[in-house]
Amino acid sequence: MKLGDGVEAAAHCAAMLAGLEGQAVLPAAALAEYHGLSPSYLVKHLQAMVAAGLLASVPGPAGGYRLARPAEDITLLDIVLAVEGAEPAFRCAEIRQRGPGALPPECFGKPCGINRAMLKAERAWRTALAEVTLAALVAGFQAESHPRSVARGAEFTAARRRGTA
Amino acid sequence: MKLGDGVEAAAHCAAMLAGLEGQAVLPAAALAEYHGLSPSYLVKHLQAMVAAGLLASVPGPAGGYRLARPAEDITLLDIVLAVEGAEPAFRCAEIRQRGPGALPPECFGKPCGINRAMLKAERAWRTALAEVTLAALVAGFQAESHPRSVARGAEFTAARRRGTA
Repeated sequence: MKLGDGVEAAAHCAAMLAGLEGQAVLPAAALAEYHGLSPSYLVKHLQAMVAAGLLASVPGPAGGYRLARPAEDITLLDIVLAVEGAEPAFRCAEIRQRGPGALPPECFGKPCGINRAMLKAERAWRTALAEVTLAALVAGFQAESHPRSVARGAEFTAARRRGTA
Repeated sequence: MKLGDGVEAAAHCAAMLAGLEGQAVLPAAALAEYHGLSPSYLVKHLQAMVAAGLLASVPGPAGGYRLARPAEDITLLDIVLAVEGAEPAFRCAEIRQRGPGALPPECFGKPCGINRAMLKAERAWRTALAEVTLAALVAGFQAESHPRSVARGAEFTAARRRGTA
């Protein structure tokens, strides 16, 4: 099972945006700079979160990104599905209907047991991700991070922030 | 999140091998033929299951594959990890240690909260897969499959089987 590295980048950016107040935004260039990522790489994932309704994008020279809804209403599952797509990881190709054992499709009334088991496991994965809100992640960062790291993040955000707080 | 299509092929082949008796084997060509797959594609996944200790491979013109241990002792997780590799789907690149907010590594004592949440969800996925044995999958196939499909599978296996039952 593989997850793209965009999930980590997207989650860290969303956590940083959760620290903005009011209608303030951070440009993609600032988010990329702070996380040591290429802006063109990051924009793709930021736009995916905009398309999923997690972020709002303000265009123009004073524009940037902010959360589209409260951090309490954004889960890690929302971020993962925005970046990775909502399709299940397991795709049943109905192998059982191929080859010399094949019968007409009406002989395969129920989904294959392998498919059912794989999708059940994926539901467990999604349920666990849905239990983690962005607000909880941010609270964890603030409680666990080194005080100098928290201070640097706050200074950086204040310097790069655009719009009214 | 993406899973390779080899998981479905490997699981169906393991289920077919679970129907063999004694020391009998089925060659890769027969497994490929029955599932409508290319032998060269399938051999890669069969060998991965051999390497993981799930299948035994008997070399030579009368050779083929059989389960290396009882179907009750092989889980869907065993098959998925054999084919996909045992690494976690989420790989933390420690983005938090990059950029202008970076501090010395000793300032990051605990794993990142995003990483912990992603790995916790993956444990839930693996736990669900570990609860499904190959024996249970086969029992489900036999109970749910069309009688003609079961009969064709048995005929095919009897015709292609090698070795003593």
